[in-house]
Amino acid sequence: MLIIDSVQNAQAGHPGMALGMAEVGYILYRHVMKYNPKNPNWFNRDRFVLSAGHGCLLQYTCLHLSGFSSVQIEDLQNLCKLGSRTPGHPENVVTDGIEVTTGPLGQGVANAVGLALAEAHLAARFNKPDAVLVDHRTYCIMGDGCAMEGISNEAASLAAHWKLNKLILIYDDNHNTIDGDTKITFTEDISARYEALGWNVITVDNVHSDMGGFKNAICSAFNETQKPNFIRVKTVIGKLSRKEGTSKAHHGTFEDDDLKEMKQNVKWEDRKPFHVVPSVYREMRIQTEYGEALEEEWYSTLNYYQTKYPQAAVEFKILLGGGLVPGWEHSLPSWSKSDPVDATRGYSEKCLNQIAKVLPGLVGGSADLASSNKAYLHDYQDFSRPNSPWGRNIRYGVREHSMAAISNGIALHGSGLIPFAATFLIFSDYMKNAIRLSALSHAGVIYIFTHDSIGLGEDGPTHQPVEQLAGLRAVPRLLVFRPADGNETAGAYMMAVENRDRPSAIVLSRQKVAANLVGTSASEVKRGGYILSDNSLKDELPEIILIGTGSELCICEESAQRLREDGKKVRVVSLVCWRIFDGQSEEYKDFVLPKKVRKRVSVEAGSPQGWREYVGEEGRVIGVEDFGASGAYLDTFKKFGFTIDNVTQVARSMLD
Amino acid sequence: MLIIDSVQNAQAGHPGMALGMAEVGYILYRHVMKYNPKNPNWFNRDRFVLSAGHGCLLQYTCLHLSGFSSVQIEDLQNLCKLGSRTPGHPENVVTDGIEVTTGPLGQGVANAVGLALAEAHLAARFNKPDAVLVDHRTYCIMGDGCAMEGISNEAASLAAHWKLNKLILIYDDNHNTIDGDTKITFTEDISARYEALGWNVITVDNVHSDMGGFKNAICSAFNETQKPNFIRVKTVIGKLSRKEGTSKAHHGTFEDDDLKEMKQNVKWEDRKPFHVVPSVYREMRIQTEYGEALEEEWYSTLNYYQTKYPQAAVEFKILLGGGLVPGWEHSLPSWSKSDPVDATRGYSEKCLNQIAKVLPGLVGGSADLASSNKAYLHDYQDFSRPNSPWGRNIRYGVREHSMAAISNGIALHGSGLIPFAATFLIFSDYMKNAIRLSALSHAGVIYIFTHDSIGLGEDGPTHQPVEQLAGLRAVPRLLVFRPADGNETAGAYMMAVENRDRPSAIVLSRQKVAANLVGTSASEVKRGGYILSDNSLKDELPEIILIGTGSELCICEESAQRLREDGKKVRVVSLVCWRIFDGQSEEYKDFVLPKKVRKRVSVEAGSPQGWREYVGEEGRVIGVEDFGASGAYLDTFKKFGFTIDNVTQVARSMLD
Repeated sequence: MLIIDSVQNAQAGHPGMALGMAEVGYILYRHVMKYNPKNPNWFNRDRFVLSAGHGCLLQYTCLHLSGFSSVQIEDLQNLCKLGSRTPGHPENVVTDGIEVTTGPLGQGVANAVGLALAEAHLAARFNKPDAVLVDHRTYCIMGDGCAMEGISNEAASLAAHWKLNKLILIYDDNHNTIDGDTKITFTEDISARYEALGWNVITVDNVHSDMGGFKNAICSAFNETQKPNFIRVKTVIGKLSRKEGTSKAHHGTFEDDDLKEMKQNVKWEDRKPFHVVPSVYREMRIQTEYGEALEEEWYSTLNYYQTKYPQAAVEFKILLGGGLVPGWEHSLPSWSKSDPVDATRGYSEKCLNQIAKVLPGLVGGSADLASSNKAYLHDYQDFSRPNSPWGRNIRYGVREHSMAAISNGIALHGSGLIPFAATFLIFSDYMKNAIRLSALSHAGVIYIFTHDSIGLGEDGPTHQPVEQLAGLRAVPRLLVFRPADGNETAGAYMMAVENRDRPSAIVLSRQKVAANLVGTSASEVKRGGYILSDNSLKDELPEIILIGTGSELCICEESAQRLREDGKKVRVVSLVCWRIFDGQSEEYKDFVLPKKVRKRVSVEAGSPQGWREYVGEEGRVIGVEDFGASGAYLDTFKKFGFTIDNVTQVARSMLD
Repeated sequence: MLIIDSVQNAQAGHPGMALGMAEVGYILYRHVMKYNPKNPNWFNRDRFVLSAGHGCLLQYTCLHLSGFSSVQIEDLQNLCKLGSRTPGHPENVVTDGIEVTTGPLGQGVANAVGLALAEAHLAARFNKPDAVLVDHRTYCIMGDGCAMEGISNEAASLAAHWKLNKLILIYDDNHNTIDGDTKITFTEDISARYEALGWNVITVDNVHSDMGGFKNAICSAFNETQKPNFIRVKTVIGKLSRKEGTSKAHHGTFEDDDLKEMKQNVKWEDRKPFHVVPSVYREMRIQTEYGEALEEEWYSTLNYYQTKYPQAAVEFKILLGGGLVPGWEHSLPSWSKSDPVDATRGYSEKCLNQIAKVLPGLVGGSADLASSNKAYLHDYQDFSRPNSPWGRNIRYGVREHSMAAISNGIALHGSGLIPFAATFLIFSDYMKNAIRLSALSHAGVIYIFTHDSIGLGEDGPTHQPVEQLAGLRAVPRLLVFRPADGNETAGAYMMAVENRDRPSAIVLSRQKVAANLVGTSASEVKRGGYILSDNSLKDELPEIILIGTGSELCICEESAQRLREDGKKVRVVSLVCWRIFDGQSEEYKDFVLPKKVRKRVSVEAGSPQGWREYVGEEGRVIGVEDFGASGAYLDTFKKFGFTIDNVTQVARSMLD
């Protein structure tokens, strides 16, 4: 009735799934899950993900009834109102008790796989026969929409490959989506599919008439030692209402007579809206006491652990504290001009492998491009069960979208793990929405995107990113770095690791960059943009500014040298991260890019979009306006104007 | 040997899959597929898609040997060179005989589903018992990478749901991906998965020792009348080389001694590179004669058809001619200020349903949001087999990525079909790379993206697009329209339909727009941007320009009214499509946005990125810099500054 009252009051929301899964919610929150409503962030709690996020009222009402202070009756009354703790889809950064932000379908399944992976990994690293610190299950509810999305299949394939037996995926089989009965679009044998993927498949025929069946299914899942569990629960969408069993119940309010009838049917006609019978609270809040006791017990185990296993406990405490150790950044390598040249993906490999030694939470991998992305921790094993669950390299196969969403799950496990996820920049397209959700849900995932421009050469336009940088830069909160050499790459890692509440994308070249540039430094990356070189006198402004990022910064520097030989005063600026630079003081920004210097050229092998902000009205943007082309790297760069000759010529034409 | 010679010569490329699938390529091009190398675009040819696009050498060599003039020996010698007809991944716009552009894995499977759907649909509409005009198969080769990608599972689920029995998907089961043996990431039972999805699954154990097994599999697929066919062919990657059977064969060249040994093994040591034995050409080009005969026969059927079924033939010829009929645009509705207000998604619904009557090729649908996107052709049925294969509404379920790639297949069937594909703007993220491939491969898909801003309200930030407009605008060639009212929506459709060689995205509001504005018109959309209103005198410049798109254009107009009441000279500009406006003459652009008018304000409920180009250095950009928020539409708009009050105040502060 709380679900119905909330929808009627808000005149918005999605009651159908919440009503159909009410029994499941009740059993999970009352009888099955381990959690402490008084401390929603207790480390060893069971994790719950509502992949079908539109059914958030199920979760909000369960949180309320179970005693989470984050969802009061007033919050239910404020459903979908601006500033409320009960937005239209669950958001972990808004409401305590919500683990991950869901709504875009299918991703919650992958988030849950990430949470379960985090548990399995940490359990292998830290648990001792006499002291079990990490031991929880991960529950996820998905609907027909989640089941249809490709990402859920990717994640399910991985979950079985990884033998995540403590993952319990509950499929709300209500046979309806927005456009109607699933028979119009979805007629595969989903149980057989999950069996083929390697899951333990259990069917519960009608949870509305037999809650015991669902409890038994959970018991059977508890007994499974190898496979993740797929519990197919046949439910009736919009149960209670006249709309029940139809797609009309998916979202929207109830008509007055329907409402009246529903209330009569459950003998609720005399109750005011939002009434809760006290015995319901009593029943649901048994969990509060139980949860507090569990947490207490866990802390005594932790105390014992610290005494008996002090060394392991140190690392565990680092993770509990967020994963960073003071001075970790000193592990980052640095480079000088005399060091051999490399691609920035090569510098990245060195950074990653160095910081892995001092950051015990750094785990991650690539979507079948470990060797190309150079995103592999050579001193560590692959995460693999049962062989090496402690392995810190995660092999995702060719599954970019789920890689990103699984990384979100790992980050939001809240246990100090720092996930990295690597692929070619072009395939950031495949994971775009999951990257967005990293930013929205404050998941500090480090994305490593190599092969970052037409400079990748032969593979051609299908693999050459053009607009991807612009697209990523437009994602709110996301930090996008395009370092020019080794030192800037180290700086990008410094910032990416420090920013634990937002994701970063480190964008790297396939091809070798010309040199380690004089003037770059890791610490300058902290300002997003800075002056690399300038031959104008003190208190004098340069005649022209060349602004570059990544592999084009050295082209700017070489062009500047030629112009300086012409007798010109030239400044070169590295704009390694727009968002950070945009956040600097107006004074600093005008110091780097003085408004009075009207002649400015930006050089970046990507879409010109957004560069006007930095070059000003009279500036020139050297970018890529069309798709790239298959060809040797230097030929391709030349075709699109990324040569010292062309940049120098453009600059000269402005100076003349 | 041609494959090997090409890789050695280019010092680039992917020989592994091409060598492993050589027998399959031979059988398909020599014994199985119907096509005419002299006319690669013959309507009734079998379609072939290489979803594992990196194996393009398989296709290039088959095209060459079969007699396609598009791939000569010189082209093979120019593999991966700038400007060649043999880029690193196959591109339909570069090489005749390539149907679709592939490389980003998994999408080819969905393209093939689109091609097969197009065939099934047109066959149902046009074939007569005595005159079969449409009757071909669609073949697709996918590798392990394609099989892992979520999109292939989405597309496979739909293919079985649609009973596309003339689709033959050949799975190159070589057990290797870039990072190693598939056992490290891919251990599901893929045959069982495809059976669960509803496919006819056939296994061929070793095509290298028994080509007959593959031929038998094809025969068995020909006999299948209900299910799409999944032929699992066990192959050895990099067959012949010392690297065979390992991931090292995936890409890269061969060492000298390996090369020598390979040549010895096949008694090729005395041949020069790129040598082809004449009997091989003779053997392979039997197909040329056969194909020409088939095409001739087809034309005689077409002649008979035109005589016997003149009415149907008229429509068929329209499709053959590209799908447009002169004057089709007169079917578009128009609106005046007195018409009732609606959301632009509502205006879109009217446009779509009107043009469907005069454009016989218009087919499409939505990813389970037909009712929300209002993208449904009410006078037509759902595409469904066997019930109504002639239906022009396609229900995709919650599968955005495959929807876009299937739409690419439909467009590139080359039969005058004009596919539309609809979802919420936020979920354009899920299909980003397929949209890019529409643009790259010249597929004239019409994307309909509704719920286009924070203005969608209650569903909150997970559903509120912010950066999606910027991201789409950065995609080369893609036309992005954000119409403000009914007439601009009609104009967007006019341009989207006319542009048959590039995709369009029509971006539409969920909420009602304030009015049909005086001054908008469908025909002005052709210029991308235009002056909506201006109270300055002739030969006088306005003091300020307010620039808006979509639902914010009326806010600009209302603010302008207030400013005009203040006595100010104010221009309002609609910038409905940036790319088209950017392509206008400098003169026209300066006429609409005179550089001399320094005071300019843009108002768009999306990322500010890119707006500086239009407002200039002194202009103000009213945009959304962070994620949105769950709340009633007007509350949300107010929070982010999209009110007449705020826009007026910003403008006044600039004018003071």
